[in-house]
Order: sequence, then C-alpha cells, then structure tokens
Amino acid sequence: MSFNTFGKIFRFTTWGESHGPAIGCVVDGCPPNVPISEKDIMSDMNRRRPGKSKFTSQRKESDKVKILSGVFQGKTTGTPISMIIYNEDAKSRDYETIKNKFRPGHADYTYFLKYGIRDYRGGGRQSARETAARVAAGAIAKLVLNKFIGKKFKVIGAVTHLGLLGCNKNVWNEKEIRKNPFFCPDKKSVKFWEKYLLAVRKAGSSCGAIIELRASGVPAGLGAPIYSKLDSDIASALISINAVKGVNIGSGMSSAFLSGEENSDEIKSISGKTKFKSNNAGGILGGISSGQEIVVSFAVKPTSSILNSRDTIDKKGKNTKISVKGRHDPCVGIRAVPIGEAMMFCVLLDHYLLNRGQCG
Amino acid sequence: MSFNTFGKIFRFTTWGESHGPAIGCVVDGCPPNVPISEKDIMSDMNRRRPGKSKFTSQRKESDKVKILSGVFQGKTTGTPISMIIYNEDAKSRDYETIKNKFRPGHADYTYFLKYGIRDYRGGGRQSARETAARVAAGAIAKLVLNKFIGKKFKVIGAVTHLGLLGCNKNVWNEKEIRKNPFFCPDKKSVKFWEKYLLAVRKAGSSCGAIIELRASGVPAGLGAPIYSKLDSDIASALISINAVKGVNIGSGMSSAFLSGEENSDEIKSISGKTKFKSNNAGGILGGISSGQEIVVSFAVKPTSSILNSRDTIDKKGKNTKISVKGRHDPCVGIRAVPIGEAMMFCVLLDHYLLNRGQCG
Amino acid sequence: MSFNTFGKIFRFTTWGESHGPAIGCVVDGCPPNVPISEKDIMSDMNRRRPGKSKFTSQRKESDKVKILSGVFQGKTTGTPISMIIYNEDAKSRDYETIKNKFRPGHADYTYFLKYGIRDYRGGGRQSARETAARVAAGAIAKLVLNKFIGKKFKVIGAVTHLGLLGCNKNVWNEKEIRKNPFFCPDKKSVKFWEKYLLAVRKAGSSCGAIIELRASGVPAGLGAPIYSKLDSDIASALISINAVKGVNIGSGMSSAFLSGEENSDEIKSISGKTKFKSNNAGGILGGISSGQEIVVSFAVKPTSSILNSRDTIDKKGKNTKISVKGRHDPCVGIRAVPIGEAMMFCVLLDHYLLNRGQCG
Amino acid sequence: MSFNTFGKIFRFTTWGESHGPAIGCVVDGCPPNVPISEKDIMSDMNRRRPGKSKFTSQRKESDKVKILSGVFQGKTTGTPISMIIYNEDAKSRDYETIKNKFRPGHADYTYFLKYGIRDYRGGGRQSARETAARVAAGAIAKLVLNKFIGKKFKVIGAVTHLGLLGCNKNVWNEKEIRKNPFFCPDKKSVKFWEKYLLAVRKAGSSCGAIIELRASGVPAGLGAPIYSKLDSDIASALISINAVKGVNIGSGMSSAFLSGEENSDEIKSISGKTKFKSNNAGGILGGISSGQEIVVSFAVKPTSSILNSRDTIDKKGKNTKISVKGRHDPCVGIRAVPIGEAMMFCVLLDHYLLNRGQCG
Repeated sequence: MSFNTFGKIFRFTTWGESHGPAIGCVVDGCPPNVPISEKDIMSDMNRRRPGKSKFTSQRKESDKVKILSGVFQGKTTGTPISMIIYNEDAKSRDYETIKNKFRPGHADYTYFLKYGIRDYRGGGRQSARETAARVAAGAIAKLVLNKFIGKKFKVIGAVTHLGLLGCNKNVWNEKEIRKNPFFCPDKKSVKFWEKYLLAVRKAGSSCGAIIELRASGVPAGLGAPIYSKLDSDIASALISINAVKGVNIGSGMSSAFLSGEENSDEIKSISGKTKFKSNNAGGILGGISSGQEIVVSFAVKPTSSILNSRDTIDKKGKNTKISVKGRHDPCVGIRAVPIGEAMMFCVLLDHYLLNRGQCG
Repeated sequence: MSFNTFGKIFRFTTWGESHGPAIGCVVDGCPPNVPISEKDIMSDMNRRRPGKSKFTSQRKESDKVKILSGVFQGKTTGTPISMIIYNEDAKSRDYETIKNKFRPGHADYTYFLKYGIRDYRGGGRQSARETAARVAAGAIAKLVLNKFIGKKFKVIGAVTHLGLLGCNKNVWNEKEIRKNPFFCPDKKSVKFWEKYLLAVRKAGSSCGAIIELRASGVPAGLGAPIYSKLDSDIASALISINAVKGVNIGSGMSSAFLSGEENSDEIKSISGKTKFKSNNAGGILGGISSGQEIVVSFAVKPTSSILNSRDTIDKKGKNTKISVKGRHDPCVGIRAVPIGEAMMFCVLLDHYLLNRGQCG
Repeated sequence: MSFNTFGKIFRFTTWGESHGPAIGCVVDGCPPNVPISEKDIMSDMNRRRPGKSKFTSQRKESDKVKILSGVFQGKTTGTPISMIIYNEDAKSRDYETIKNKFRPGHADYTYFLKYGIRDYRGGGRQSARETAARVAAGAIAKLVLNKFIGKKFKVIGAVTHLGLLGCNKNVWNEKEIRKNPFFCPDKKSVKFWEKYLLAVRKAGSSCGAIIELRASGVPAGLGAPIYSKLDSDIASALISINAVKGVNIGSGMSSAFLSGEENSDEIKSISGKTKFKSNNAGGILGGISSGQEIVVSFAVKPTSSILNSRDTIDKKGKNTKISVKGRHDPCVGIRAVPIGEAMMFCVLLDHYLLNRGQCG
Repeated sequence: MSFNTFGKIFRFTTWGESHGPAIGCVVDGCPPNVPISEKDIMSDMNRRRPGKSKFTSQRKESDKVKILSGVFQGKTTGTPISMIIYNEDAKSRDYETIKNKFRPGHADYTYFLKYGIRDYRGGGRQSARETAARVAAGAIAKLVLNKFIGKKFKVIGAVTHLGLLGCNKNVWNEKEIRKNPFFCPDKKSVKFWEKYLLAVRKAGSSCGAIIELRASGVPAGLGAPIYSKLDSDIASALISINAVKGVNIGSGMSSAFLSGEENSDEIKSISGKTKFKSNNAGGILGGISSGQEIVVSFAVKPTSSILNSRDTIDKKGKNTKISVKGRHDPCVGIRAVPIGEAMMFCVLLDHYLLNRGQCG
C-alpha cells in the first residue's frame, strides 16, 4: 500500500480530482476468468451515488463506469482492469469565492502546506468523489470473492448512529438497510432520522455518523501477522476514507471496560462445529480471521462544509471568515456505507489471495 | 508494510518467538550519520520491560539490546541495523498443560487454522514479547527525529483509562507519567488504580486500558494521501499491537456525535502564526499533519490469559476447560504505552523521509 | 515494483491492451509544482510512435496523450497523474486466423498457460503497444529531473547494432541519432542499415538490435544497496521491455574477459575534480552512481511475428503451421530506443527521490 | 524488493558487515510445515564458503548458520526465520592502511559519497560476505520448492568462462561441477583453468567469469507481467550480486544477431507433450515461464582488490596510489555459482507463491 495504491496482491490505484475531466482506478492482480460486467459494477456504484435523495449532495452524477482494459469476452484476463468515470456535473464556479481560503476541517490547509499547490475546485483530490473509484474496485473484489467462497459470503454495512441518534442494531434488517435512504438497519428509527437530518440541514449545519460492517462467510486463516494483520489492514482502509476518525474491531474501544472473563470469547464445539459464545473479538484473533462474523465499526465526522460562518485564514495567512455554499451532504457518513463495504471487499480478497499464496 | 516488516522508507522487520533463543529486529533505511548507542536504546527498553512492578508480568528479562550491524564508530552508516535481544527467563514448561488447547481470546486457534502448526510456548510469535523489538526500532526512530526536528519534538503516551477507572486527562503531568507504574498522567488517580488493579489480579481476572499518545513539534505536511495517510498508517501501526481493538484520531468515535460547527477546528492567525481554536482533528487533516499536536488514542482489551476457568476446545475439536497460570500482566494495556510511542516514532520518521523524498 | 506498477516513490502503473479502446498509465509520487503539458509529453511520444517510416509497423496511431488528473494550471500537484491514449488503428480481424494458435517466440502460449484466457487481438497485454504508456511516464520523469538537476542532465539512447551490422559508437552524434529512422549514432552506417533492413523485410524475416543508453549529469550517490541497486533496477526496467533478452552495465558481459588492472577504473583528481581514467563500471559502483556517465546496453531479439511459415501448436495441443501477417516492425529494437530512455528517466528519478528521502 | 529486502511474498532481508560481529538474514513469508534444519542449510553454505581451495580467499569462516526463530520441532511455522552467521576470521588491521583511500573498482567511493560515512573494514556492507546470508535464504527456498514441485526440480550453476578461457558447455556434467574447485562443467577444461588462475594470482592480478544457471522442472506460468516479469526479477537478483555486470536470458545479447526464424523457438506436440525445437528464449516468454528449462547467464567482473599498484584518490581528494593486500579471491566469479543458484531459488519460489496467490 502506498500513496494512491491500496493492497498487496489485489491492488487498486485511484486517480482523479473532483472537478477534473474524470476519475478512475486501475485494479491489478485480479484473478483471471471471473465474469465481470459494467452492469455488475453499476449496482454498487448506485448505492454510493450522490443526488439520490434529499439527504445527500445534489450534485448529479450518473457515475457510469467504463471498463477500458483487463476484461475480454466478459471475463477478467489477469491483466490490469482500468475503469473510468467521467465527471459530469462539476460546478467549479462555486469555488471561486473560497479558492484562497482554507475551509476549517478540510484538507485545504494541509494540502497547501505539503504540496505548495492545490486544485481548490470541489476539494480537488481530497474530495469524497475519489471514493467512487474505490466502490468500482470493491465491486470487482466482491465478484471474485463470490466466485471463490460462494454465496454464503457477504458484507453488509449500515449506519447505526446518525449524529446523536442511535438505532436498535439488534434488528439488523438487511432489506430495510437497502430500502431507506440512511442505510439504517432498524425501520423504527428511520422516521426520527429523517426529521433530525432535515433539521440539521435547515440549520446550515451537519452531523456525523457511525457505520457498522458485518462480513459473514469469511474463511478462517486470513490475515498476515505481524504488520499486515487483517484488522490493521481493515483499520488502515477505513481510516483512509474521507472524514473517518475512529475504528473499532469487535467491541473496540469498549473492550477497555470489560473484564477478561467478559471479553475473551469462549469456544464450544457443537455438533462438531466450532462456536464462540460471544464475539467481542469481531471475528479476528491475533490479526487472523477466526471464521466468526467479522464486525467492525467506524466513525465519520460531520461534514466540514457548512453554511454557517466560521473563522479561518487565507493563503497569505490573514484572518477571514468562510461560509461554504456548494452542494454538500448534511451527513457524509451516510454514503460511507457502500465505501466501507468496498474497502472491506478489497481487504478480504487481498488477504484471501495472500493466504492462498503463502499457505496454499 | 508486509508480513513482519513495517514502514516504507524507514522500515523495520521483527522476528522471534517468546520462548525461542532470542527475538530481534532489522531496521532498514535509517539515515546515516546519526549518533546511536545501545545505551540510548536501553532507556526506552526499560520502560516496556516486564517484571518492574507488581502490576506487570513477573517474567524477568533484562531486555538487553545488542546492535550487530549498521552502526560504525557510534554512528549509523545507512546500512541495516540488526538488533538482538536474548530470551532469558522463558519457562516453557508452564505451557505443557495447555499446548493442545486454545486459550479463548488468544490467537492460538487462528494461528493453528492458518498455519497448521504453532509454537505454543508462551504464545510463540503472537506473544507480546515481540513488541520489545518494536521498542528498539522506535528508539532509533526517535533519535533520528530528535536530530532532524530538534528537541521541540516529542511523543508522550499515557494510560487514561485503567479498566473502568478514568483519570483527569487535563492534568497530563509528564513527570508523573514517568514516575508511577501505570503511566497515569494524573497523580490523584494513581492510588485508586493501584487498589483496583490489585483487586483485579487477586480475583484471577484482568482489565483493559485506553492509552493516549500526544506528538508535538511534528512538522506540517507529513502524510501521503490517499492510501498512506498519516492517520491510516498510525491506525494500522497501533492495531498491529497485540490486544488493541480500537483507535481514535483526535475526537475519534465521538466526532460522530458533534455538529459541524463543534467539530471542524476554526483557524486563526495570531501574531503571524496559524492557530487552531480546537483540536478535534487530532492534528491531521486529509491524512496530512497540520502542525497541531497529533493526538490519538487506542484501546487495549483485557489480558486474555486469566486464572479463572473458561470453556474452550482442544486441537481435536473436543470441548474442554482451560485456566491459564503462567506469569501474566493483569493489564497488558499498561506496557502498551512505550510500544505505542515507539510505533508513533516509526510512522512519523517514515513519513518525514517520504515527504522529504517526494516534496523536498 | 509489482505486477503492472514500476517504481518505489515515483511509481507508474500501466494498463491496456493493444486492441482495447485505450491504453494508459497512472503516475504516482510525482513531485509537485513541476510545469508539465501534453505537448511536452508528445515530443517523446512521437519518437516511439509507429508508422513514421517504412522501417517500422504501419499501424497508424497518433499516440495523443490526454492528461486526466494531477496537473492543475499547468503544474503537477503531487497527486496521481492519469494519462490516456486511445487506440485508433487496431485491426483485430487480422488476428482471427491465429487466435487459436500460439505464435512461436511470443507470449501467447505462456499467457494462456498462466491465466487460462488471453486477449489474442494484437497480442493483447503483451503487445509492445503497452510501452507507449511508459514513454508518457518517462516524459514526466524527464521534466522533473530537468527541473531538479538542470540541463546538464540528459539521457541519450542509440541503436549500436542492427542485426548483424554494427556502427562506429565512438562517433555518437546526437543530432544524427535524432535524424535518421534507426536512431543510429553514426551517419556512415545509416545507408547500409537501410539496405539491410529492407532486405530483411522483403525476405519476410526480422532482425534484432542492440541499444546503448548514456546518461550524463547524474549526481553521485543514487542507488540503494543491496537489493535496489541502481543497476539492478535498471536491468529489471530494461528486461521488462518486450523482447529484451540481455543487459550490460558498462563493459557488461565483456568484463569477464578483462584483467583486474584493465577493468577497475582508476581515479585521478584533476584540478580538484574527481576523474576516472576509464568507465568499465558504466558509472555505477556497488549499485550507486559515481557521478561518471551511466552507460548501459541491452539486446532486443528479432520480431517474432514473421511472414515465413513456422511450426507451432494450437490451443488443443495439435500440431499446425503459422505465418503472421498483420503490420509488424521488421526490427522492434529500433523503437526500443525511446522506451529504454523512458525507463532510465523513471529509474533515475525514483532513486533521486529515494536518496533525497533517506540521505537528505 | 527494497533496500536490503528481496522478494514479494517470500522475502528475505539481509544485514551485516564483513568485519562486524555477525551477518544474517530474516526470511519472511515462508510457507509453514516445511521440514528445515541447520544441517540442510550448511550443505549449501559449504559450497560458497571461502578458504576451501587455493583458488579462493584464505579467510577461514565456518559459516555456521544458527536458526533463531520461525522453526519449531523441525518445521517452519510460517513466521519469520531469523538466521545468524558469526564472523570468525575478520582481520580488520589489514585495512588500516587503506581506510582513507578509495579502492578503484570498489564501492568505497560511492558509499562515501552517498552516506558520508562508511565502515572501511573489509569492505563493510559492500563485502561479498553479505552473500553468505543469501545462500542461507536460498537453501530454505530450495527446500520449499523441492517439497512443492518434487525432485524433478533443480537449479544447477556452473562457470562457463574463467577469464579468457571457455569450456565445452555441451558436456555439462553435474557431478564434475560439484567436484572441481571451479564449478566447471567440463572435466577437460579443469587443468587449463588451474594453471591459468594460478598464473593470474601469481601476477598479483585477477580475472572475471561467466556463470550459467539452468533451472529444470519449473512449472509453466510463473512470472508476473509487466513489471515483475520472471526474467526482470532474475536479472535484478543477479545484478544485485557483487561485481555482476551483465545478464543474459537464454540467447541474451546474442539474440540481437539472430534472424526471426533462428531465434523464435518453434513448438511441436510430441506424444501429447509440448516441445520446443530450441531454447533461445531461455524458458521465459513474455516474462512467464514456459515449462522449458530456464537458462540464464551472468558475468562477474575481475576482483577489484589486486596487488598491483593503482592510481586513486583519498578522502580529501588528493591523488595517491593503492595496492590491496588482504586475502582476496583471484576470481570472485567462482564463488558466485552457489550465490546465483540461491537467488534463482528465491525468485522462483517467490513467483511460485505469487502465482498460486493470483491464479490459484
């Protein structure tokens, strides 16, 4: 993993700026002979796509993915798969007024300090638009894993906290997740979330979110100790998503408050099958998957682009005020669900291949 | 980063099992002409060393580091620095009774599934003993950073939660941290923690901890978007430490509960210097250091090796009971402080060199 | 370096098949603030482009490079530079008759064995067309090096042997190299080469070539012992070019026939400057540049696609004959000159940045 | 591959200086459950060991390898294998007289320019002593390959040119190679070589060599286009060996002089088996093994340390003379045979695992 490339055997490189002509990614190391079509990829792209509801950015992007290489007669060939997504609805003029100012909470300031130059239009490279390319890569990883492991394998993400509002995670209704605009797993919470988010948007403010990912059907043995542990790589993958500030593996931060008895998941053999009595470990022990469900969660901070006026400085270091108009998600965390899933697919496939390489 | 190697330019590879003849690491890519001695390294090793108080494992290891290469006439030469630490007090017999059983919460089960073989003595490779080698690598990284950035640079870690007990983080007394056996920053909490941990140990149980790391004097501009972001690499580094289950960057998981106004740190120029009004970002924006203090925290689960009897299975899949005697820390989180610091030193130096490479 | 990515800090990933819609590359880790335009890149592309003379393939490709990201207001931003080149003149029908046969000397057979599937049109991924993407990456590396080191830095390649015909390398006329269609450094040889190559083509045959690259103005100190030595990386880069079968560093294979006295280049200080009395080392000692001119040469085997009928087998393993029509270079070695230069630019920039990272 | 680490999945990191306390390597990514003993490794070490005949350095090293980790109850565990070899016969005093001078043909000058510091004793890190660690890594790779592929797999190296003297390669008597002190495959040449090399040594001079490696039983399909081609990685591996200046794959440099008909190896199916009529490709097409014997050769320049006086400069840039006494091989190329074999084992295993990872 390095700079704009993620992965070890199954690797993808993303490129592109929010208001450039296009964004894209190159997937390398993909196993051959896996049936893949642009249509397969689009079903995942559509889940992340902006402009679908009043709760997300109104930027209108079809996010149509075009495959330029690596697929022949409907199957992967083992050579790099290049995908391109054109930017269709960039409104760069919106950014003229703030091009010399640093938006608080954004990477404007740090990109400028690091590189001495930045594409200010729509956040340039730091825009969440980059994540569309990841979803395309993740869609491919999912297809490969489905072929290798079978349909029992799946990764489902959901928003479990929308700002201050939680939901009943125990419900975890997958159909419901796919239906409501919040990826909320609990139908009862949807109404409250709607009202809450409309109020947040009306106030010119924004809110954060917590997303949970559950991967089931993952074979035991994936993960490469010591410095490519499965959970290290998942954490790295998730924190690389824009605005993510925290990651929990299983019980995560809360495990600090448990006793040894409460925390360590007891093991039982039931009808010849290994069962764990609990899953505080989140399906990962010593950085290796145990065969249990992998459960991780991550926090997305509130959108930094808000209408309300804030203190900041400009490129010359002078104090000024900023109010960001543009078209922004009141909660970027919502669209992080398919992105998190995509990163999970990529990490799991990568470790699947790595384990097959080393351990056969 | 791959398998047992961490880093991109400044890379270290650790090796060794808990009850093998020795453990060690090879540091590669270290800049030349930096004064380094075994004595410098020992001062860091001593902070992690077991057997120093009644609150840590009673295994007696001097953890003496011997430098075998890469240093000539007291200075680094730019070639790999190999360090070896002999295991002196391994008591492998303690593990005979449990060699065919999987300790709940440990990686016994997953190592066995992955590799089909495991060194059961003292946890083998999955033992926290491996972290001694990281501290040696971190000590070198610290010396290099001190030379390059100067004495204003420092990383201080502290335990802010010992199991259910918190402390007053606002005190953050560095002298106190170095003095008490818990790396607790708040003198007032030490007494309570003592009693609490003794009770935990007496009960044959264990508890978790939360550690906070603060790095000040870090230059702005470190971090390589998109997939080698500074916070991604820190998260990956910290989760690679045994028993770590969660990582927060700045406000971390809590940032989900803040509003956009509360969360995004406003910027002010005061006497020509950039100041942030708050530090929810933890000193990292868009994966790049902002020049603010870098603040991260991580959770360590309670020690899995406990006296109390637990359900588990053996290598043949039969149900059985286990009670782990050996010499274990009632709270492994305590010794995670110098380890977390070491990983932070390594990540920061690596990104310092990477940034110098790409951006001059 | 891995799969379809080359480099460590300055990294490029190429993608695309000969008869797919496009080919391209993503350049990552490029330093910011370097002026770069599509026009700059085209001047290098034109040197490699097919269809320019009767001595190269008659495929007509404009090889127009479009930059899709990473450049803003005419300067690099430090983010990935994605470039795309559309395939305009692919004639896939030419390959219908041989789609089930393996062309001797080609990678048809090995791609099929490895991946179980291959894009047979125009050689698919194994086509020399892929090298257009490298030339685009190399053009960027050159611009960066010119900015960093100055105009004294240059890399000049030439064909020194066209099949059985040599030339007088001592002439090494750079203007001449740029003028004749063979990149021949010695004007006197051009006429003979013309006649020779026309005869080869007329006979439905092909011939090989030896290319020499000379890089001057390279700072001393580039190269990372032991396993990323400058010459290791150059050799790896050159052998990765289609049809290259051998590499010499300085005196290369011939150094085996020299005595210690003849071979080791004596050193003299003349007017305070270090001078070497000879350059058998090719400017590289212990894998590190010495400040002398870097001189390497490599051999390109004769084009495998020839008109004359050959024995081969088909996909089912049955014996058959093959005669490859299509539009092929009678000597692919000629167009290897700008490709070799491009790879040299990339290796040198990569090591420049790596050295700046580690050694300052 | 980076700095002092070689490989992708099967990776080894070497460390140590010629006159430091020890040298060693850490092998990572080795598959588990492979029987390995120190004794197995010693049989390879002994082939490289100095001081065995009057034709190699008289430095007396037992080169005893001690395994410190990664092997449990005689089998690999999948964790890193650390090996240490103590330096027993370093005579640093020999180097006092030349510590401020740069030996022509050596890396003294370039190490000094790069790092600003160097361990001058015995060449420090640039000493051929480093290659002992590679042979240890290669011995492990060989054992793994033997287990996976079976006994039909083997790599045999031989010296085919000793300075100006060739031999009859067609003989290629493996028993003879193992018997004579030159790894010469043709018994008839041994006597001439003896006389020649004694004369060279007596004259205070040195000579070069060409080594050929033949790997048979290698499965088809190994190699990862485009930038990790099997031949790219072999070339990189061989050129990383001290004093190697050229590499040929199959017909290598000579392929430039062949016609398309002569060069491209025709294919025939004989009794259902694929046969090639010739092997100019050296068993590699498009960077992927074809199942044919892999044949590569490489040139080793004459030992740079010679008795005869040479011009050079000292650290201050002043002109001076140098005559290197010490204990040197009159032809370092001889001992390059087991080193070349070791690198070949490592590259092949690495690609075996990589291919198993990507392609199953």
